Amino acid sequence: MKNVLIVGIGTGNPEHITIQAVNALNRADVLFVPTKGEAKAQLADIRRDIVSRYVTRPQSRVVEFAVPVRQTAERSYHQSVDQWHAAIAEAYQRLLLEELKDAETGAFLVWGDPMLYDSTIRIIERVRALETVPFDYSVIPGITSIQALAASHRIPLNLVGKPVEITTGRRLAESFPEKTGTAVVMLDGEQAFMKIEDPDARIYWGAYLGTAQEIVMSGRLADVKDEILKTRAEARARHGWIMDIYLLQKGRDFEE
Amino acid sequence: MKNVLIVGIGTGNPEHITIQAVNALNRADVLFVPTKGEAKAQLADIRRDIVSRYVTRPQSRVVEFAVPVRQTAERSYHQSVDQWHAAIAEAYQRLLLEELKDAETGAFLVWGDPMLYDSTIRIIERVRALETVPFDYSVIPGITSIQALAASHRIPLNLVGKPVEITTGRRLAESFPEKTGTAVVMLDGEQAFMKIEDPDARIYWGAYLGTAQEIVMSGRLADVKDEILKTRAEARARHGWIMDIYLLQKGRDFEE
Ligand SMILES: C[S@@+](CC[C@H](N)C(=O)[O-])C[C@H]1O[C@@H](n2cnc3c(N)ncnc32)[C@H](O)[C@@H]1O
Ligand SMILES: C[S@@+](CC[C@H](N)C(=O)[O-])C[C@H]1O[C@@H](n2cnc3c(N)ncnc32)[C@H](O)[C@@H]1O
Repeated sequence: MKNVLIVGIGTGNPEHITIQAVNALNRADVLFVPTKGEAKAQLADIRRDIVSRYVTRPQSRVVEFAVPVRQTAERSYHQSVDQWHAAIAEAYQRLLLEELKDAETGAFLVWGDPMLYDSTIRIIERVRALETVPFDYSVIPGITSIQALAASHRIPLNLVGKPVEITTGRRLAESFPEKTGTAVVMLDGEQAFMKIEDPDARIYWGAYLGTAQEIVMSGRLADVKDEILKTRAEARARHGWIMDIYLLQKGRDFEE
Repeated sequence: MKNVLIVGIGTGNPEHITIQAVNALNRADVLFVPTKGEAKAQLADIRRDIVSRYVTRPQSRVVEFAVPVRQTAERSYHQSVDQWHAAIAEAYQRLLLEELKDAETGAFLVWGDPMLYDSTIRIIERVRALETVPFDYSVIPGITSIQALAASHRIPLNLVGKPVEITTGRRLAESFPEKTGTAVVMLDGEQAFMKIEDPDARIYWGAYLGTAQEIVMSGRLADVKDEILKTRAEARARHGWIMDIYLLQKGRDFEE
């Protein structure tokens, strides 16, 4: 039987990798690295840097591959994602069939933690369901962008004893500030924070966390939102891409 | 100026520590380890194991200390936590004054990630506010029990594009299943999952994650809740303590 490791590598800071992940990468015969045709060339470089820093096993092979691009035309969001996952599953199936010999171990390097807004686990399950290549797999956690954000700002995520919602830009308006006092917002292509009008809301924002380009800003949302918008647009234009995340919070510890 | 590092060490699996955390522990002159009078002796052993596995700097000193116990009699929950934090801040202040020389670095080992239901950051801020010992500090993330849970079950936390609420046993009834389709429940002393009646809810439960005693169970909540309750009670009786966490979820990917 072949063996697959889904390995979280952190979100930019190469030191955020765990000992377990380093050991897993060194157990693998083949390292599958999604770098080919990567629009964000810097992310491909970070993955290559991780391999060259930590992989000491001389006989392992690196297989760079291109992740299929999501097609959105004339499809609902769900259709679009579903078809995209099916296309990636086919690509993974081919990798496992063609690049991995019997009884070998292949590791997929995953940004952050595979459990968080990432589809590698789902796609590996799809490949298993195809039943064309028998394999087992395990998952190795990695530091998420949420943790990189909190560490850079030196903040607790939650108020004492209170809940936290993790959500996307598309869905932020459904939750903060009415349904939750603390929201972490990821995958925000629309700068959803600009529409929040609460005078008590605070924001802790971060972009390119863990990399040399890291930017963090924080303050009362009403005071800093325009500046964040401007900084974000400038950084995006300068680098050609951006990845950002933020925490919105209102209320204080020990307040009801 | 003295320097403090708040270092996340993962939640039981010593390999969940990051390279950044290992480097931080090796930069520290003093390692502050909350082990004295630890009711859960095994947790103290895990911390000692981490120090002995990863700290190679010969001249560093280990200072074991006792964390003050929270007093609950005749206090509201908030008063009780607030006074407890004040007592811990005093203890930390003493450690920084007495155990750390000028310009030295001290590291506090924190279970999981310091950002998640942990008060070390808040308490260090309280010590700074006392202005009796000048120091700077930084935070180093660690793998949380949420990540250990998801990795052991090999599950994504979120449904595709959907939010996730992180909450406590006390507050679960406020959110799942009405307000959120995915809830992670921590700090649950009352087995709040027993009161959830939704026929479509699934549970992914884990105790002692990352340790040799790890137990995981999952299934349709209605089918497995009694078994989890029983397993939990037996394990708790056998070990004298328990730490558990679970994910409740309803709905499926690509469902509206
Ligand atoms: C597809 S999700 C993957 C999340 C990843 N699995 C994790 O554990 O953080 C991508 C989103 O994560 C966030 N993100 C990932 N890396 C980041 C970084 N270095 N800085 C800021 N945000 C980041 C952004 O919100 C981005 O839109
Ligand atoms: C005070 S909180 C600390 C959380 C920690 N900072 C983290 O990052 O996971 C303690 C709670 O975390 C969860 N927990 C921590 N370690 C765990 C483990 N090894 N197995 C299961 N649950 C754990 C339990 O829900 C427990 O009640």
